[in-house]
Amino acid sequence: MILILKQGTQENEINPIRQKFESMGLIIQEIKGESTRMIGLAGDTSQVTEDEVMVHPCVERIMRVSEPYKLAGRKFHPETSIFDIMGRKIGGGEFAVIAGPCSVETEEQILSVAESVKKSGADFLRGGAFKPRTSPYAFKGLGLEGLELLELARKETGLPIVTEIMSPEYLGVFADKVDIIQIGARNMQNFTLLRQVGELKKPVLLKRGLSSTIEELLMSAEYIISGGASQVILCERGIRTFETSTRNTLDLSAIPVLHKKSHLPVVIDPSHATGYSDLVESMSLAAAAAGADGLIIEVHNNPEKALCDGAQSVKPDIFDSLIKKIKKIREIIK
Amino acid sequence: MILILKQGTQENEINPIRQKFESMGLIIQEIKGESTRMIGLAGDTSQVTEDEVMVHPCVERIMRVSEPYKLAGRKFHPETSIFDIMGRKIGGGEFAVIAGPCSVETEEQILSVAESVKKSGADFLRGGAFKPRTSPYAFKGLGLEGLELLELARKETGLPIVTEIMSPEYLGVFADKVDIIQIGARNMQNFTLLRQVGELKKPVLLKRGLSSTIEELLMSAEYIISGGASQVILCERGIRTFETSTRNTLDLSAIPVLHKKSHLPVVIDPSHATGYSDLVESMSLAAAAAGADGLIIEVHNNPEKALCDGAQSVKPDIFDSLIKKIKKIREIIK
Amino acid sequence: MILILKQGTQENEINPIRQKFESMGLIIQEIKGESTRMIGLAGDTSQVTEDEVMVHPCVERIMRVSEPYKLAGRKFHPETSIFDIMGRKIGGGEFAVIAGPCSVETEEQILSVAESVKKSGADFLRGGAFKPRTSPYAFKGLGLEGLELLELARKETGLPIVTEIMSPEYLGVFADKVDIIQIGARNMQNFTLLRQVGELKKPVLLKRGLSSTIEELLMSAEYIISGGASQVILCERGIRTFETSTRNTLDLSAIPVLHKKSHLPVVIDPSHATGYSDLVESMSLAAAAAGADGLIIEVHNNPEKALCDGAQSVKPDIFDSLIKKIKKIREIIK
Amino acid sequence: MILILKQGTQENEINPIRQKFESMGLIIQEIKGESTRMIGLAGDTSQVTEDEVMVHPCVERIMRVSEPYKLAGRKFHPETSIFDIMGRKIGGGEFAVIAGPCSVETEEQILSVAESVKKSGADFLRGGAFKPRTSPYAFKGLGLEGLELLELARKETGLPIVTEIMSPEYLGVFADKVDIIQIGARNMQNFTLLRQVGELKKPVLLKRGLSSTIEELLMSAEYIISGGASQVILCERGIRTFETSTRNTLDLSAIPVLHKKSHLPVVIDPSHATGYSDLVESMSLAAAAAGADGLIIEVHNNPEKALCDGAQSVKPDIFDSLIKKIKKIREIIK
Repeated sequence: MILILKQGTQENEINPIRQKFESMGLIIQEIKGESTRMIGLAGDTSQVTEDEVMVHPCVERIMRVSEPYKLAGRKFHPETSIFDIMGRKIGGGEFAVIAGPCSVETEEQILSVAESVKKSGADFLRGGAFKPRTSPYAFKGLGLEGLELLELARKETGLPIVTEIMSPEYLGVFADKVDIIQIGARNMQNFTLLRQVGELKKPVLLKRGLSSTIEELLMSAEYIISGGASQVILCERGIRTFETSTRNTLDLSAIPVLHKKSHLPVVIDPSHATGYSDLVESMSLAAAAAGADGLIIEVHNNPEKALCDGAQSVKPDIFDSLIKKIKKIREIIK
Repeated sequence: MILILKQGTQENEINPIRQKFESMGLIIQEIKGESTRMIGLAGDTSQVTEDEVMVHPCVERIMRVSEPYKLAGRKFHPETSIFDIMGRKIGGGEFAVIAGPCSVETEEQILSVAESVKKSGADFLRGGAFKPRTSPYAFKGLGLEGLELLELARKETGLPIVTEIMSPEYLGVFADKVDIIQIGARNMQNFTLLRQVGELKKPVLLKRGLSSTIEELLMSAEYIISGGASQVILCERGIRTFETSTRNTLDLSAIPVLHKKSHLPVVIDPSHATGYSDLVESMSLAAAAAGADGLIIEVHNNPEKALCDGAQSVKPDIFDSLIKKIKKIREIIK
Repeated sequence: MILILKQGTQENEINPIRQKFESMGLIIQEIKGESTRMIGLAGDTSQVTEDEVMVHPCVERIMRVSEPYKLAGRKFHPETSIFDIMGRKIGGGEFAVIAGPCSVETEEQILSVAESVKKSGADFLRGGAFKPRTSPYAFKGLGLEGLELLELARKETGLPIVTEIMSPEYLGVFADKVDIIQIGARNMQNFTLLRQVGELKKPVLLKRGLSSTIEELLMSAEYIISGGASQVILCERGIRTFETSTRNTLDLSAIPVLHKKSHLPVVIDPSHATGYSDLVESMSLAAAAAGADGLIIEVHNNPEKALCDGAQSVKPDIFDSLIKKIKKIREIIK
Repeated sequence: MILILKQGTQENEINPIRQKFESMGLIIQEIKGESTRMIGLAGDTSQVTEDEVMVHPCVERIMRVSEPYKLAGRKFHPETSIFDIMGRKIGGGEFAVIAGPCSVETEEQILSVAESVKKSGADFLRGGAFKPRTSPYAFKGLGLEGLELLELARKETGLPIVTEIMSPEYLGVFADKVDIIQIGARNMQNFTLLRQVGELKKPVLLKRGLSSTIEELLMSAEYIISGGASQVILCERGIRTFETSTRNTLDLSAIPVLHKKSHLPVVIDPSHATGYSDLVESMSLAAAAAGADGLIIEVHNNPEKALCDGAQSVKPDIFDSLIKKIKKIREIIK
């Protein structure tokens, strides 16, 4: 960590900094620019927060040299992680497709979609039981009944299930029933929930927040892993920009960037990112070509009747042809 | 709500739309452009989500004419709300200052800051007991012990206390001990928590999320009010943009915009928005001049030793002179 | 175009609106919501600017139903444009690769890179003669000498040349010497230049501005086409967001969105978008998979010695293997 | 400038860096972190572009310690600039108001508005003769005729005139007729124009681009000053964010930040920033309270008939009362 000091900083202003960080076991090094004085901190600086440094009035700016995350980063975990989740692999050349409806609606619906996506080659079944909705007046999912329908679908198809947790009150139920626990974009910095979900030691799908940086996404993964879970899958699902012709802007360069910084698998959600079903195919193919480790796609057998987000759901036949193309692209980029 | 249909839409594609919304009690009206066909929906469209409309393949785009919120909006509540919270008023010409340290650290610290801000004219005492931190390795607040120290400070100074809730597990404790419950920016769309806090029927300070629109802020207020609380104070605390010389970009135009759309009071947090103590004064004065109903300012008697966010805390003497200027500005804009 | 009127609007306030737009030949239609009054304007509303409407104090908001562009849009030009530029085709299934160094530096450099990219299959040679630089102290290109070196490279390799114009004073020279005139991101809304370049009636490569919407990009294309040029190639090169781990955020969903709204070809610039050479391959493959009509890639035989943007330039061997993969991806998505 | 090297960098990879920068007269210093190696460059690094450094494959990241601008910065020009422009002062406690219509329309209009704003206390008259419009079909200003009408208004009222240049072809005319030459937001990085306008050595009003950082704004000012002009006024006019309830987001924290980094005066344009006349007053007062050196406000005697941007123009009586309040606020913050 480099501390750039304000012009005219006196020796006695630096002393408290020196003492503080030496007492933390860090090595202090003076760096002299022509007109600028700097201090370098070497050692384990992940314990040092920027706040602690910036409070010293003589510090103008700081630059982190090492990343603030350790467990989620590649530095101390150089080999790429490949997770085995109920026999399905993801990461490091293993590609996984998670598919299913936005929300679980009826037994008939979830069974029909599950059978259909399984036939097309999906590895996991997704479906919302608890739905985050911006309006208090909108359909919020079937709740516990939805979880039971997902379990039924798993029993019928063998597909492990992925679904979102929205509140700590259901931690126990999710631990029992769900195979991959999803943390939604809006809860990416619900730090209490991150920690609690981490303590369940189950696979987690962590969605990037709408305005979260890649570093923040990795810090949230760090929370989960430091809680005890080791299988964290990162998910890019679009960030918020000024562009309004898509719901969000899908940041596909996050794939190679995350692969460089982290050992964790990266999946892409083209359905939520774009908000339009007719953009899902092209963005799915692009994600695969960019090296994603997987996709999470909304599929609905009857989007017109979907109780939520039908506009972004593709029909089973589109999904089927999409999966075939994905496989071919995967072969090229190997 | 106006539905713009795709070119070449046939009559039979429109019928399901007509049936669906007529069954919801809405009035359907056809609008014909030269080359575009549209449908107008009149009636209570706050029950209609955009998803439900967009799933119809013939719909190209929709435009909401009425706002999706009711309880938080000015339309059905034209008079400006003035809240009386333990004898302090806020809203509609009544200005309130909330001040205190980023986090509660020791008895001596919180008592000393509380006395000091009270003397300068603060109306409420703030202080974090539970702190949201991006790093799992950073100080996360004193927790319940922090709440007790806040209670002690209230007892000594008479200042009602404002502090952030981060998890539903403490709902009961907050109901008992806290005067204004703060929902932080990162939890603005933690819909479960919004609802639960609303059900406590206590005053709430709702911070705008880093990438949340003004409409989304009002929808989150709607969640809280629909839960039962009526005293919701809106707080602008900076939004995330490409600019990096400040931590966030303070959106002061949100003040007049929120006043136009909503009857709720609007307070500004210049400390978190800018991230630098030397920008707090100018942004506080600007907020007052723009018509804010209050400020929430971080004050610390010893910022260099603060365990969090010291860099953005002002010292008591700066705070004191700031409050004096604020009063003069308030007189001008009345 | 729909005009939403303020609550309580009186008949006499609407009359001036009615008169104004009737006198422009538009058809005025009243739309009544339950609590909101609206006016629909039908006819050629591309002549109506939003300013003209919003000045009427009774108008609260407006919504465009038709796009404000005509020549660049698909509505009046439904068939996809395929351009033939000196025997190379681009658009509608014809894919073109533009490659070359960031800036033309020496005869040896440009000839060597030109030969190399030609061998790998590039269709056009790019190279900056006039360089936009944020610092007045940075290398600004060889200027006219650079154009001559590009001409020499065209003579040697047969590759048509693409280079950026930065000022109207060189319009004549560019008309003479350059095959595709590039308008850079920073000049996307230099409306005078757009018009003047359009009047040359030569092929134009128009880069999207860093914070420009897709609609604005199409409006700038409209300027060029209305000036007289018909062959306008649109280029997405990254937009500015809060994310800092890449130089900009490449918006690949712009490809299908532009194809839906416009008949013009769309190329992607992964070099400027990401700013890092090791992200170029994955983003190029993703662009091809997403349906791009071409790529513009920086290639340098000696990036370490490049006078500008070397960090984002790939070496010839990487470029060669990239082109081979692109061809395979093109076959899959056909 | 600090260069952070990639893990595992070898001595021989660093040698070319050492040679290159030593030959530029810079002092090279090695900095060793525990697991990271760094290089410090001391001396005049404003001549070093980031590209030149990043091309070395062993460099992972760089951090500038000194600003890349010199003439526009405060470091080498610590005293605040106060400009005297035809007897009107601006900067360092001297506040100036620039007012007038969006565009010059008729002799009667410009004379009437000029008289009116002069009476209210405006220091300069603004008015567009050449207008940047996103649509090629919109009114683009009266051009040279507009300049003549502005000259007439100056003759009648004595107010110096401020108007925007859009193309180098009119440099001579602007040199002759205009008192402060405005560079619009869309041309903030039209580097050729910046340089050429700078060479006229006249006062310049430089507007911040919609997605430009504060550093980029100062780099554009550096272009102008390095061209020869010394009186550059910086103007914040809203930046582009995800928020849609205002046209742009006015970044008032840019005022204190610019004052810290630069000696140049800072004015605020609330009219273009917000896009709505009813937000102009609150944002003007906020700007004055935040320490702005001036305002540029659109005033129109008949906004309903304005040929452009009428929706954001205030009427003369509103302007008059606004100026009175501004004066009082100026007294408080002195």
